[in-house]
Amino acid sequence: MRTLFTAEMSELADDLAAMARHVATAIDHAGEALLTKNVDLAQQVIAEDVKLDALEEMVDSRCVLLIAQQQPVGLDLRTIIVSLRISAGLERMGDLAQHLAEAARRSYPDSAIPASHEDTITKMIEAAKKTALEVVQLIETRDLNVAAGIVSDDDTLDSLHAESYKSLITQEVHGSAQELLNVALLTRFLERFGDHAVGVSRRIVYLVTGDHTGERSTI
Amino acid sequence: MRTLFTAEMSELADDLAAMARHVATAIDHAGEALLTKNVDLAQQVIAEDVKLDALEEMVDSRCVLLIAQQQPVGLDLRTIIVSLRISAGLERMGDLAQHLAEAARRSYPDSAIPASHEDTITKMIEAAKKTALEVVQLIETRDLNVAAGIVSDDDTLDSLHAESYKSLITQEVHGSAQELLNVALLTRFLERFGDHAVGVSRRIVYLVTGDHTGERSTI
Repeated sequence: MRTLFTAEMSELADDLAAMARHVATAIDHAGEALLTKNVDLAQQVIAEDVKLDALEEMVDSRCVLLIAQQQPVGLDLRTIIVSLRISAGLERMGDLAQHLAEAARRSYPDSAIPASHEDTITKMIEAAKKTALEVVQLIETRDLNVAAGIVSDDDTLDSLHAESYKSLITQEVHGSAQELLNVALLTRFLERFGDHAVGVSRRIVYLVTGDHTGERSTI
Repeated sequence: MRTLFTAEMSELADDLAAMARHVATAIDHAGEALLTKNVDLAQQVIAEDVKLDALEEMVDSRCVLLIAQQQPVGLDLRTIIVSLRISAGLERMGDLAQHLAEAARRSYPDSAIPASHEDTITKMIEAAKKTALEVVQLIETRDLNVAAGIVSDDDTLDSLHAESYKSLITQEVHGSAQELLNVALLTRFLERFGDHAVGVSRRIVYLVTGDHTGERSTI
């Protein structure tokens, strides 16, 4: 019975890794769609979000089944509950990548990124892609050093977001209201992407170490 | 044992009701802070969000404990897992009320709401307050008729959000970039508030009826 349980828990970890890889691809493609005005790629990101939702449902069902069949206690139980929170965080990251792709599609054939903020948003997309790959790496390798990189990327995203927001309200409005709103929305989505990566990362660190220092929620 | 379990489940429902009441107060106060430029009230909403976070942690801990001690199966287990999702949704609604209060505080002594959009945002605040009270009522009474009102409020919020967004990009920019960004952010927070209310409501309906038609997630 124990062996079966271990196998099931391992499949749960595989599902989370699959979700993280999906998110990494989604943010990579959404970023490229934005930067190259590739509406087909944007459409693909939007269409494929249902796969991530399906993976989240699979994780949820597996967790309910694991609890019902194995009646785990202690660390095993906490692992399952934390996995539910991780899958919800990854699903939100996928939604944010989808929002970026929707912005690219909405602006087509124009770019959603005004020239004035192309540099900032390009840097933010790079940081978001980096953090998504680190989340994959953290789930797959459980190398806790990776978590520090995720926090650092989030700092980068936060400061670029704050900087771009300040530039919008302190400079004269160049270009249209649409451009200004695009900058506000795109940078906010990217900043939230980093927040969710940190949330997911803290929960994985907790699973590996049992230590949730700095995690807001107790589980 | 069964009686104890029933009592515990009832306390879980009480915790969720307490969270919903907290959210209803938070959105009521955040709305008033925005509309009357009341920075003290805004500060209070921001400071009290930790209480909602503490309630969410209590729900989480109670769920873990219930599973560990009672090893529930079937409907009981699903109720517990769905409760975790409901508490996460309520916590997000509280965060959004906090974001509204932060906008009020940031703009003080000016209003965060430009005169051009005062009417729209006032209507959105009314709809958000209404939906929050309906969520409380739904949790407390389990009267499924209330759920329809929550969906209808969400439709109102969606259409007011779409309308305000359109007004921003099709009209000339009146006022400053800061005002335009405030409208974009405030209406987005309110629109998301309605989305989360619908998510919470669907999960409560599922708990009452066992039917999750229309709910995206299987649990």
